[in-house]
Amino acid sequence: MDKKIPYKIYLEENELPTQWYNMRADMKKKPAPILNPGTHQPITVDELSPIFCEELAKQELDDTTPYIDIPQEIQDFYRMYRPSPLTRAYFLEKKLGTPAHIYYKFEGNNTSGSHKLNSAIAQAYYAKEQGLKGVTTETGAGQWGTALSMACSYFGLDCQVYMVKVSYEQKPFRREVMRTYGATVTPSPSMNTNVGRKMNEEFPGTTGSLGCAISEAVEAATTQEGYRYVLGSVLSQVLLHQSVIGLETKMALDKYGIKADTIIGCAGGGSNLGGLIAPFMGQMLRGEANYDIIAVEPASCPSLTRGVYAYDFCDTGKICPLAKMYTLGSSFIPSANHAGGLRYHGMSTIISELYDEKLITARSVEQTDVFKAAQLFARVEGILPAPESSHAIKVAIDEALKCKETGEEKNIVFGLTGTGYFDMVAYQQFNDGKMSDYIPTDEDLQKSISEMPKV
Amino acid sequence: MDKKIPYKIYLEENELPTQWYNMRADMKKKPAPILNPGTHQPITVDELSPIFCEELAKQELDDTTPYIDIPQEIQDFYRMYRPSPLTRAYFLEKKLGTPAHIYYKFEGNNTSGSHKLNSAIAQAYYAKEQGLKGVTTETGAGQWGTALSMACSYFGLDCQVYMVKVSYEQKPFRREVMRTYGATVTPSPSMNTNVGRKMNEEFPGTTGSLGCAISEAVEAATTQEGYRYVLGSVLSQVLLHQSVIGLETKMALDKYGIKADTIIGCAGGGSNLGGLIAPFMGQMLRGEANYDIIAVEPASCPSLTRGVYAYDFCDTGKICPLAKMYTLGSSFIPSANHAGGLRYHGMSTIISELYDEKLITARSVEQTDVFKAAQLFARVEGILPAPESSHAIKVAIDEALKCKETGEEKNIVFGLTGTGYFDMVAYQQFNDGKMSDYIPTDEDLQKSISEMPKV
Repeated sequence: MDKKIPYKIYLEENELPTQWYNMRADMKKKPAPILNPGTHQPITVDELSPIFCEELAKQELDDTTPYIDIPQEIQDFYRMYRPSPLTRAYFLEKKLGTPAHIYYKFEGNNTSGSHKLNSAIAQAYYAKEQGLKGVTTETGAGQWGTALSMACSYFGLDCQVYMVKVSYEQKPFRREVMRTYGATVTPSPSMNTNVGRKMNEEFPGTTGSLGCAISEAVEAATTQEGYRYVLGSVLSQVLLHQSVIGLETKMALDKYGIKADTIIGCAGGGSNLGGLIAPFMGQMLRGEANYDIIAVEPASCPSLTRGVYAYDFCDTGKICPLAKMYTLGSSFIPSANHAGGLRYHGMSTIISELYDEKLITARSVEQTDVFKAAQLFARVEGILPAPESSHAIKVAIDEALKCKETGEEKNIVFGLTGTGYFDMVAYQQFNDGKMSDYIPTDEDLQKSISEMPKV
Repeated sequence: MDKKIPYKIYLEENELPTQWYNMRADMKKKPAPILNPGTHQPITVDELSPIFCEELAKQELDDTTPYIDIPQEIQDFYRMYRPSPLTRAYFLEKKLGTPAHIYYKFEGNNTSGSHKLNSAIAQAYYAKEQGLKGVTTETGAGQWGTALSMACSYFGLDCQVYMVKVSYEQKPFRREVMRTYGATVTPSPSMNTNVGRKMNEEFPGTTGSLGCAISEAVEAATTQEGYRYVLGSVLSQVLLHQSVIGLETKMALDKYGIKADTIIGCAGGGSNLGGLIAPFMGQMLRGEANYDIIAVEPASCPSLTRGVYAYDFCDTGKICPLAKMYTLGSSFIPSANHAGGLRYHGMSTIISELYDEKLITARSVEQTDVFKAAQLFARVEGILPAPESSHAIKVAIDEALKCKETGEEKNIVFGLTGTGYFDMVAYQQFNDGKMSDYIPTDEDLQKSISEMPKV
């Protein structure tokens, strides 16, 4: 390739994807079905429909259709902030002195600040199409809640967000962005739901957890007329919507004849990673190409690298379907010093199955190293990254430094999922030298894993 | 024009400006010279050089060279975040039901969150070229300080920021971004400088002002070996650097054969407005075209609409050169309920002269109206705007609604200078219905204006 590669590769609007890609269709061994929590039988669209919008319930269970049309209204909304740039990290390469070529797909150039908007707008669209009044959800770090409030505002839907109490208190600005978009934000556990009241009674003063907030949001959806529950990660439908990231990335690389060698994404519930790798994994599953794919997770919440692959509850309240996934047990909660997101106890069933088949690898990294990488990146590439995204930066730098040793000119692609503008408390800890690491002990994990359901 | 106009017009990298445009060269009546505060004579490059880098001092006084080359290293840095998108506000047009076509040039897609980086990188570059150790500056709302810390980090320069104390305390996250980029941030008035110590003594408990922070930064620059002072607005050199905004805007419009009718920018010190309008004003000055150009300022700090055109001090400490400008008097401080930036008492000498010659018009708007416009814009266009930028949004909406009445298909272009991620305290006041307006009385203004120097 002699063609000079620009700093940023933008696609033309007419090159934007018009269909999402559903990896499951190309998987020979499908992800294990999600189960009805009562009967332990594979759940049906009818059983899911009281919780999810009908079209989304169908997408959740569809493991055979490879391409699903993106409705025109969603395509229109995507044009508000997509295509996102694929950036050649020339400045970072120079700083590292690596022969590797580093590219990152930046999803933070929208007000929600992350990739979450790609699925939020899809879920809001189907809710509106079904004639619903509104949706409920939970949010931890706040990216998903912000994205959903933007999407609901666009379609005139009511948006009720249960925000993990500790985040509600520590991230008042995230809350205000949601309110600016008209959402109702309730700290969880709340007194609005049975689950919340029980939790407040049993653990007075608790600052909440993602699993509990999920249970509250599901209860709120199923007990209000005209409401459904929506979720920002983990689900197969979310990975489907997020495939827009990977499809754009692949098209941008193809335009310049660039073949990725290594693809890196942070992994909490798996939506960013699943979206970024989708078309590349499709090629691998069809035997057309091979890539070195790396999922990066926090050492403090290591579901892939230290979890078990088994059926587990998706929420603390145990009212959601059971999913077979790499999990630390639904009672696992990351230690209090863990900053940022990526704190879910389990992992997308799709990512879990791909990992189990060794089609992807995983690494865990400690947060002070992650923030060091974040600071370096911010200084040379001019983007203050989200702590979540910085997990991928850390491993991309590690891989680029390996290339420096070996002299390999690898093409390293990573997902830069969002900005860190609302994570400055964590940056302040880092700047003040007060950030600490925590790795759960084997005993910690054995305890939460032992509390899993026997399926 | 039948060619469909995309949501976002991006320029190719090889279309980026390689020269800045200096409006003053085409002005028949030049802006009045800045004066030595001691002698009241036009200041020379030699007299300016102890304060400013030499090359910047030359640019400050150069009112004859129309195009000035952008050094390659600055062009490289611009490629990190430029070209910025020119967005067709299809969603806003639809919401308003206007036949007008609305475009906005969005400068917030970089971590400093605003256009200020365009000049920060230039000023840091010249400081490095001169072999300096570092630079000092002041910051109010924090956008300029953030931009400068990014720029200094890139060139390995020390960066000392005097941050107005009230902002330092209310915007800890802005401060942390600066620290992440390695800057030293000191609340002003401080005990580091004579000016600061005097201010703290005379007004115990004062929360500072921009004029005082400027004086402190200038004193710090002139009393440390190897330091110079840099400023983020008002100066003619800053408008020169910011012309990159307008040059890109004009090129993007020209690509699609779009002729702007109305061009709108918010105006504090005038750098954004001056940059945005530069090439368009050039056409007007050369008699090649005509545009309706509107400067928008806060009703609480109305230098154009209610100030006088006269020589004034640029800083509270009265150690900077005197400038002839529209001004409220250097002792004017906006009321405490004023949110966001645009709080400087004066206006760029270039903008002042253009306004005096009636080549541009000005409007003042009240902040609750500004935040209403901001919220509407955020909801339909998906970008949470900075309060400063929202002044331009407010007037763009007003103009678009006039077109709705008249049926005119005007092309309205406005500058969206930045994001509001660090202004959520103000948004919270607005969301809670606690935001108030304040318009200074004639007596307020007469007092500060009467304290101006007699030149």
